[in-house]
Amino acid sequence: MTVTLADIEAAARRIAGHAVVTPLIESPALNDRVGGRVLIKAETLQRVGAFKFRGAYNRLAQTTGAERAAGVVAFSSGNHAQGVALAARLLEFVALIVMPADAPGVKIAATRAHGAEIRFYDRATESREAIAAAIAAERGAIVVPAYDDERIIAGQGTVGLEIADQAAALGAAVDLVVGPVGGGGLMAGVAVAIRARSPATAIFGVEPEGHDDTRLSLAAGERRSAPAAPRSLCDALEAPMPGALTFPLLQDSLAGVLTVSDAEVAAAMRHAFFTLKLVVEPGGAVALAALLAGKLDLAGRTAAIILSGGNVDLELFARVLTGAA
Amino acid sequence: MTVTLADIEAAARRIAGHAVVTPLIESPALNDRVGGRVLIKAETLQRVGAFKFRGAYNRLAQTTGAERAAGVVAFSSGNHAQGVALAARLLEFVALIVMPADAPGVKIAATRAHGAEIRFYDRATESREAIAAAIAAERGAIVVPAYDDERIIAGQGTVGLEIADQAAALGAAVDLVVGPVGGGGLMAGVAVAIRARSPATAIFGVEPEGHDDTRLSLAAGERRSAPAAPRSLCDALEAPMPGALTFPLLQDSLAGVLTVSDAEVAAAMRHAFFTLKLVVEPGGAVALAALLAGKLDLAGRTAAIILSGGNVDLELFARVLTGAA
Repeated sequence: MTVTLADIEAAARRIAGHAVVTPLIESPALNDRVGGRVLIKAETLQRVGAFKFRGAYNRLAQTTGAERAAGVVAFSSGNHAQGVALAARLLEFVALIVMPADAPGVKIAATRAHGAEIRFYDRATESREAIAAAIAAERGAIVVPAYDDERIIAGQGTVGLEIADQAAALGAAVDLVVGPVGGGGLMAGVAVAIRARSPATAIFGVEPEGHDDTRLSLAAGERRSAPAAPRSLCDALEAPMPGALTFPLLQDSLAGVLTVSDAEVAAAMRHAFFTLKLVVEPGGAVALAALLAGKLDLAGRTAAIILSGGNVDLELFARVLTGAA
Repeated sequence: MTVTLADIEAAARRIAGHAVVTPLIESPALNDRVGGRVLIKAETLQRVGAFKFRGAYNRLAQTTGAERAAGVVAFSSGNHAQGVALAARLLEFVALIVMPADAPGVKIAATRAHGAEIRFYDRATESREAIAAAIAAERGAIVVPAYDDERIIAGQGTVGLEIADQAAALGAAVDLVVGPVGGGGLMAGVAVAIRARSPATAIFGVEPEGHDDTRLSLAAGERRSAPAAPRSLCDALEAPMPGALTFPLLQDSLAGVLTVSDAEVAAAMRHAFFTLKLVVEPGGAVALAALLAGKLDLAGRTAAIILSGGNVDLELFARVLTGAA
């Protein structure tokens, strides 16, 4: 089983009219700053403030009648939680979300606002997988994984289709696509779409320092976890290792994986606020961070970057922007 | 002298490739919240973070050789300042900007970063008009007004052309266009464009409480100042009265002028941050504030609103968002 362009095109038809076709934005100030042309795919402007709605809706829209009655269960630090919660509400299911007790308050509140039931767990002492499996068994409900699922990957891949279409409408040839890697669902789907539509484009993933399990896995040629590391600013990108489905797709398509520090992420969030006027969460800012830190040569080139989410607590946002975090 | 659709179309050709064609964004969450369809013209994503670049570039691009040598002078609390400073840099002029000493730091820093010379004045004791006139006379430079100038109005009117084109591309009929009024340059230009392209659309201006000089002027049938009032959160919308050129255009076209309080503006900035993921300055948020406060009936209707700018100091932004301002 894998994910093909046809799966992603089918996902695009399924989410049409439900997901937002987010704009591909250009900022001359950012172009000047990095010495190349940057096209910003603002998934911060997606429903629930993150690309995750695409995959969740694509998955849930393919649920059968019996599955609908039992509802769905998902576990997530926040953006997948919101995506599943909203998709379930729109499709008239019950959703239960297993979330860490220390997830950003803004993500918890939004998940609840979409009508989902929330079961909190302690990151240190409990297994979210075990909790979700137990609840699913008890209810006869299906578990909706955050990334390791063909229909989730295909949904996220619609970001890549839109980048290809929107860049073509601008008459721009995209040399690079750069986006965040947590479990790899987004970039696996994007890679399938971009390789099919724009084979000359090089695709880069970006991970936070200390959570560079995909970089390590690609180097090792097999899935690996990163050594235990302190928490990153990027709560959305702390998946322990690439997925069984996402890894081969990433292995097959990524030109490389870049790593960014918390300080580089904070600088990108400041640039987004002061120059782009966009609210970006830490995990959503890693591709911008990599560009601003000069990790790719952009001279004479066009890069499409994915700002994957904008769900950040105001308190953390203010601390990051004032340089206190 | 007045401004026609042809002037605005000429301005659009003049700024093409220099100004950003800002996206018309839709948020299903905002639609649900207000009970109608809202198309958000995000001029926060314009160069310099505000629509003002359009008019400034259109004006300065029509400057003659002799005028270019002497440079330009402008006075502004901040967004026009940045627009003139950047347009002058791109067109290789010298620009001097007269700014209030208490203008937002972010606007002062950006104006300086675009290479303009800045002359500060004290709002309480000095006349910016007199200072600008004296400098212009001494240098033989032209003064570039913030709104009361046909070429400035025509430049700002390109926002209206883009709204009409982008809504048409979405297949949307726009029932209402709603945007901020300070001196009236933006909405005068937008009104000319929208009335020509979409005559059935009703056009509303929005002013901050205590600075509702346009509302009072329309009621009186002649230009009036509002009674002295405390400072508004909306530093960009404190023009003392409508312009001699903008007023007849507004009189001819506005269906009404709404007034919003600082608290309503703050609520709109919070909605923009938490739900839309957009950074909007107080003056840029008044149209959204009017919609969120229920000042227009949107049931079954489509409103295009202009978020006119996003240049806000982080300290004020944090205070507004935490409810402290």
